[in-house]
Amino acid sequence: MKIMKNGERASIKGPADWFTGTVWLNEIATKPDSPRVRCVCVTFEPGARTAWHTHPLGQVLHVLSGSGLVQAEGQPVRQIHPGDTVLIAPNERHWHGAGPENIMTHLALQEANAEGVQVIWMEKVTDAQYAAR
Amino acid sequence: MKIMKNGERASIKGPADWFTGTVWLNEIATKPDSPRVRCVCVTFEPGARTAWHTHPLGQVLHVLSGSGLVQAEGQPVRQIHPGDTVLIAPNERHWHGAGPENIMTHLALQEANAEGVQVIWMEKVTDAQYAAR
Repeated sequence: MKIMKNGERASIKGPADWFTGTVWLNEIATKPDSPRVRCVCVTFEPGARTAWHTHPLGQVLHVLSGSGLVQAEGQPVRQIHPGDTVLIAPNERHWHGAGPENIMTHLALQEANAEGVQVIWMEKVTDAQYAAR
Repeated sequence: MKIMKNGERASIKGPADWFTGTVWLNEIATKPDSPRVRCVCVTFEPGARTAWHTHPLGQVLHVLSGSGLVQAEGQPVRQIHPGDTVLIAPNERHWHGAGPENIMTHLALQEANAEGVQVIWMEKVTDAQYAAR
């Protein structure tokens, strides 16, 4: 058993290649301690969002605070709120982020596949795609 | 993509065979929607705790609120607080729960193995074991 006390790990700024706007990542379960199940608590400032991406084994999002948006390709942009859980299918192209005027924090849970891959990043979500509601 | 809105699923009382005291389970990721990664938000009333148990692929706990206790067999009982993350190794015998005078809520993340098993329940934690600090 290993205990990581609160504050031992610094929050990480979401890399600009994968996110639009300011995004903060608080890692909960990562390799090598958790080789397959991964969990990160992610805070998006208003307007911030992921790039389009897929997960080889799918993803679960669980909103903790604020108000956010999620879209699977070919489906409408949908609003998500605290307590809502989003289930993304394996290889389903999608993005998620804060609302235009609201910060949003969610847990992101995904499993790495046998090759250790948990996410495949793609192009940025344009302002037009983000605003298409 | 599937969205489960907050309130769609009822909280479940922790079964008396697996828990001592009053424990509430709020399921976040469960089968069949998430066949391998499982996540449950668990609230333990003061004095409440799991039975001894193991997870074939390990477990990650992340404390959200309150003050709790965790023990791996052969190690001392340790206190855990909000923001702390506990990494339980595969097949490591352990228990977790609230402090004697504090409620505690944590996320529990574990992966089911190829047979769909995510936890193996054992005997209850005695009052003497719980108080041994």
